[in-house]
Amino acid sequence: MCELLGMSANVPTDICFSFSGLMKRGGDTSHHRDGWGIAFYEGCGCRTFHDPEPSATSKIAQLICNYSIKSKTVISHIRKATHGKVSLANTHPFVREMWGRNWAFAHNGKLPGIKKRPLMHYHPVGDTDSEHAFCWILDQIRNRYPKPPRGTRALAQLIEELALDIAGVGGIFNMLMSDSRVLYAYNTTKLSYLTRRAPFGAAHLVDDDIAVDFCQKTTPADIVTVIATTPLTDNETWTALDHNKLYVFKDGLIS
Amino acid sequence: MCELLGMSANVPTDICFSFSGLMKRGGDTSHHRDGWGIAFYEGCGCRTFHDPEPSATSKIAQLICNYSIKSKTVISHIRKATHGKVSLANTHPFVREMWGRNWAFAHNGKLPGIKKRPLMHYHPVGDTDSEHAFCWILDQIRNRYPKPPRGTRALAQLIEELALDIAGVGGIFNMLMSDSRVLYAYNTTKLSYLTRRAPFGAAHLVDDDIAVDFCQKTTPADIVTVIATTPLTDNETWTALDHNKLYVFKDGLIS
Repeated sequence: MCELLGMSANVPTDICFSFSGLMKRGGDTSHHRDGWGIAFYEGCGCRTFHDPEPSATSKIAQLICNYSIKSKTVISHIRKATHGKVSLANTHPFVREMWGRNWAFAHNGKLPGIKKRPLMHYHPVGDTDSEHAFCWILDQIRNRYPKPPRGTRALAQLIEELALDIAGVGGIFNMLMSDSRVLYAYNTTKLSYLTRRAPFGAAHLVDDDIAVDFCQKTTPADIVTVIATTPLTDNETWTALDHNKLYVFKDGLIS
Repeated sequence: MCELLGMSANVPTDICFSFSGLMKRGGDTSHHRDGWGIAFYEGCGCRTFHDPEPSATSKIAQLICNYSIKSKTVISHIRKATHGKVSLANTHPFVREMWGRNWAFAHNGKLPGIKKRPLMHYHPVGDTDSEHAFCWILDQIRNRYPKPPRGTRALAQLIEELALDIAGVGGIFNMLMSDSRVLYAYNTTKLSYLTRRAPFGAAHLVDDDIAVDFCQKTTPADIVTVIATTPLTDNETWTALDHNKLYVFKDGLIS
């Protein structure tokens, strides 16, 4: 399996602290050593870093831990290969353009039979079930909405239907996806979230003896939600996301 | 204007030396300080680094200079904004997926009127004329070949026709593009190349007092071609590419 990390914030915020915890799980405190990736949205732009090396020892991951890249929406993933070989092409997040927006997607789970679903507009570059699922989701959205629908509700409803369909019988579909405007989160087995807002306190990582006092790094108006497969800190209260329900995060809040 | 850097090699090769020269031109030895980017192909996978910061002072660019990422095909770009604001979304190389392949594209020049050309499958995320041109090229290829044509000649001929069409009257279209299999290069005003092969010698950068002896870093079978807007070394013989002609580089050689 793999692990996911997402962030939604109302102000551009760096993810150095949370990512420092996640990267340890890629070959140090856990066994997700088959590559990692991260996507940072900055306005409509999206920059990604991908590496087939274990995150715990990756020089690029080390840079991400120490270099403050500020973003309102982030998606990250560390991989334990179960379907598809260890290669750059198979590292998440996968990115495609639709409607002139960058869509990024990362998945944890397994999707038996997904590769039998035919694709039209989008095609996988690698050989994971995850990338096939992402291409299929975008195909379905694009077929229904050749142009973006007004408002966000209809689109969220469609994405939830597609997620339910993909998970099917026996599938595991924990995923994070963004179109640069909102962050979608869906899980059939495991995702938790935590919202930090004033009054801010201190946080301590599960995977490393690192603590940060967010009072020193924030303003009273900041709202930052972090979503992870398993909680990244051991002194804060994380909430499990309901299963089989699509969450839409915007500016750090569930919308 | 902007500057381009490309590499095609028959073995995975790092581009640290050439990139060290190019990055100096992003705010130090030259004025291309409006962002930079680089795409590395590794098999069918493609990883990119994008930064709206000047390359001469970018921490990410510094990592690329010092960290050996080995690739057979690389495309890089430093930007002097002439069309479109300075932003992450406007940094080259732009990437899209077609036929399950990652296509990357970087452009130097200006393309008056390009934005009037209608688009169908691919749409720009930012507001540069370059990204619009890339989307239009992919649209035309996809319309002609919904599936990849056999052989490479027909595709290269189509891309040359599209490049000639885009450059039109008064346009400047110097570009590098790849589909992970070959590297396409086209120029209306300025691109030069250099092929390094045995017997290898020493090379010295124009933009920094750095030299490298490729004898120490290569095997006798290695063939590495570097393509740049203006020569990056001052003790080797660079050859100007013919104008208005598409070059196809594969494994370091013109094919």
